[in-house]
Amino acid sequence: MSITTPQGFLAAGITAGIKPSGNPDMALVVNEGPHFVAAGVFTRNRVTAAPVKLSKQALADGQLRAIVYNSGNANACNGAQGDADAQATVEAVAQQLGVQVTDVAACSTGLIGEPMPMDLVLDGARKLCENLGDFGSAAAEAIMTTDTVKKEVLVQREGWQLGGMGKGVGMMAPSLATMLVCLTTDAQVDAHTAQDALQKACDLTFNTLDIDGSTSTNDTVILLANGASGVAPNAEEFEQAVLEACADLADQLQGDAEGVTKRVNITVQGTSTNDQALNAARTLGRDNLFKCAMFGSDPNWGRVLAAVGMADADMDPDNISVFFNGEAVCEKTTGTPDARNVDLSGADIDVLVDLGTGGPGTAMVRTTDLSHAYVEINSAYSS
Amino acid sequence: MSITTPQGFLAAGITAGIKPSGNPDMALVVNEGPHFVAAGVFTRNRVTAAPVKLSKQALADGQLRAIVYNSGNANACNGAQGDADAQATVEAVAQQLGVQVTDVAACSTGLIGEPMPMDLVLDGARKLCENLGDFGSAAAEAIMTTDTVKKEVLVQREGWQLGGMGKGVGMMAPSLATMLVCLTTDAQVDAHTAQDALQKACDLTFNTLDIDGSTSTNDTVILLANGASGVAPNAEEFEQAVLEACADLADQLQGDAEGVTKRVNITVQGTSTNDQALNAARTLGRDNLFKCAMFGSDPNWGRVLAAVGMADADMDPDNISVFFNGEAVCEKTTGTPDARNVDLSGADIDVLVDLGTGGPGTAMVRTTDLSHAYVEINSAYSS
Repeated sequence: MSITTPQGFLAAGITAGIKPSGNPDMALVVNEGPHFVAAGVFTRNRVTAAPVKLSKQALADGQLRAIVYNSGNANACNGAQGDADAQATVEAVAQQLGVQVTDVAACSTGLIGEPMPMDLVLDGARKLCENLGDFGSAAAEAIMTTDTVKKEVLVQREGWQLGGMGKGVGMMAPSLATMLVCLTTDAQVDAHTAQDALQKACDLTFNTLDIDGSTSTNDTVILLANGASGVAPNAEEFEQAVLEACADLADQLQGDAEGVTKRVNITVQGTSTNDQALNAARTLGRDNLFKCAMFGSDPNWGRVLAAVGMADADMDPDNISVFFNGEAVCEKTTGTPDARNVDLSGADIDVLVDLGTGGPGTAMVRTTDLSHAYVEINSAYSS
Repeated sequence: MSITTPQGFLAAGITAGIKPSGNPDMALVVNEGPHFVAAGVFTRNRVTAAPVKLSKQALADGQLRAIVYNSGNANACNGAQGDADAQATVEAVAQQLGVQVTDVAACSTGLIGEPMPMDLVLDGARKLCENLGDFGSAAAEAIMTTDTVKKEVLVQREGWQLGGMGKGVGMMAPSLATMLVCLTTDAQVDAHTAQDALQKACDLTFNTLDIDGSTSTNDTVILLANGASGVAPNAEEFEQAVLEACADLADQLQGDAEGVTKRVNITVQGTSTNDQALNAARTLGRDNLFKCAMFGSDPNWGRVLAAVGMADADMDPDNISVFFNGEAVCEKTTGTPDARNVDLSGADIDVLVDLGTGGPGTAMVRTTDLSHAYVEINSAYSS
C-alpha cells in the first residue's frame, strides 16, 4: 500500500546527500495519465517557502505531471536565490521526464534559511528520474525529517484506489515540522471535484491537528488523479475516500508528533458557533500548562477551565463541564468528587468541554502532550 | 525594603497549614490610614476565582483597609461554597481588625478546584491579626507558590515611599502561575489617580509578560495609598513611581518564571500599529519551537519568521529583518552570512523583529525559554 498502488503512478526515493545523516532525502512522484488532474492545499503562513510559491503557480491550471520532494532543507527565506533554485529543480525534472516545466510541483522540508546545495539536488533529480518504479514506500521514507516512521495509506474502492503518503505534523494553524502530503488516485475526477474534496478533507483532518500552534512555511497537500482505472465515482463517493485517507494520515501524524507520549483529542460544545468551538478547542490544545498535565497523566481540570476561560467563544462561566475519557471531572464549573482519581495513564486521552450556553457550536482538535522529548528535539539541534 | 517600609502599613505572614510542605501560606496587609485609597487590576479570564469576584466588589468604592492572602489553594471553580468561603475569610479578618467587611479584599493562589480547608484558613486569619507588624517580607514569602525567591521592591521619593511584593508570573494574556502583586504607598493620592497610574503601569509591565500564554483565574494587582507621609506628589510623579515599582517586580517575575534559563525580550517594529506589533510579539513569544531554540541557545531565526508569518499584523513578507542581541541574522527575509554564529549562550536574549512595512507600530513582550524544567514542574505534580 503506497502512492504507487493506484494504477498509473511511478515514484522514487533516493539519497542525494542533503541530510548530513545520509538518510534518503529526495523523492519523485510521477503521474503517467491518461489524465493529469491535480488539487492542492497550502500553508496559510505569509512567509512562504520558494517551492510553495512555485507549486501554487504550477497548480493554477489544475494539472500536474510530477512532484519533486526534498527533505533536509526547507528552501525557505532564501530570497531570489531560493526561487531560482526551486525553478532549476523542476526544470531538471521536467527536462528528463519530457514534460512541461509548468506541470512539475516541488515540496521541500527541513531547516529554514539554509542555501540549497544545488549540485546535490540536481544530481538527485537525475537519479530520481532514472530510478522510477513502484517505489511509493521509498518516496514516503525520503520525505521524513524528525518523523520516526513513514506514513502511508491506501483506500480501496470498487474498481479504483487512492493512496497517500505524509510526513511531519500540522497544517494551517498547527505544525511543528512541515507537513507534506501526497495523494494519488486512479479514479476519474475533474479538477474542481478534486480540489473541493481535498479542501473539505483538509478542513476536517489536517486542519484539526494542532500540536504546538506553529505553522510551517512549507505545508503542502497535493492530490493527483489520473483516471487510469476508468472508474468515475460520484463527488460524494470521492470526497468520502479522500476524507478517509486524510483522516488516516492525520492520525499517523498525530501519533508521531515530536516527543509525543499522549494523543489528546479535544471536543468543545455548548457554544454559539462551530468557529467559536474551534477557537476554544485550539486555545486549550495550545495551552502548555494543560499539555504538561496530560504528559503527567494528571486530571488537572482546573487548567482546562483556566485555558478555555480566555477563549474567544460564548460561554456561561458558571456552567462549564469537563469530561476526561468520558468521566465527568467538572460540572457547573465545580469539580466532581472523584475528579482527581480519573485514570489518564493510557496513550489516548479524550477531553470534552461543554461551555454551558446550550448553543449548537461544536468542534474537535487533535493535539498531544508537551513532553521532555519535545523540548529535547526542539532545543538540541536546529530543525 | 518591603510593603511595610512606607509609613502606616502593617503586615504578617504565617503558616496556616494549607500547603502540605509546611511553608508559610497566609499573609495580611493592613492600611492604618489616615486615608484608605485603593486601586486594582484583575485577570481578564472569564473563569474567575471567588476571591477575585469578592475583591472587585470591595474595591468598587476605591477604598480598602486590608487584604488577606493565601497560597496553596486558588479557591477557583469551587462554586457557591467557594464564594461563601472567601466571604467568611474576609469577615473573620474584618471582625478582628474592627473594620467594615466591605473594606477587606482577598487574594488566593494555588490549585484550582480544591475546597478551601476553612478550619485552617479561619485559624490562620486569627493568627495573622494577632501577629501584625513590620513584617512585609514575611508576607512576601507567604504568598509564594512555585516561586523560588520572594519578590519585593521599594521606590523612594522625596518624603514618600512606595513598596511592593509579588509572586508568580504573568498577567492578562500571560501567567503560568497566578500573579499577585500588592503595592503600598504613604503618598497622598486620590482613588482616580491611583487607579489610572496602576492601570498604565500594568499595561507597560505585567501585561507585557508572556511566559506561556496562559492566564490565571486569580491574577490580582492591588495598590494601597494612605497619605501617611503628608506628601502629595503630582499625577505624573506618582505614575512614574508606580511604573518603576511594577517594572522592577515584572523583571523579578520574569527571572523566576517556572523552569526559566533565559530571559527573552522581544521587540517588534515596522508594522502599522502598536497593537499589531504587540500581536506579533506575543505570537513569537508563545511559539514553542522558538522558545525551545532559545533554551538551546540556537540562533534559529527561521523559527522567528515562521512564527511572525502567522501573526495578525501588517508585514512585507519579503522585507522582514531579525536581530539577536543587536546582531542582524536576517535581512530582507534572508539569512545573513554569520547568522548561525551569533552567541546566545547568555541568560538574556534580545530579539528585534522589523516587519518591513515602514509603519510606526512597535511593542515589547518579555518571555522566557521553554526548558526541561518547565515541563518537569508542570507535569510532575498538580499546581
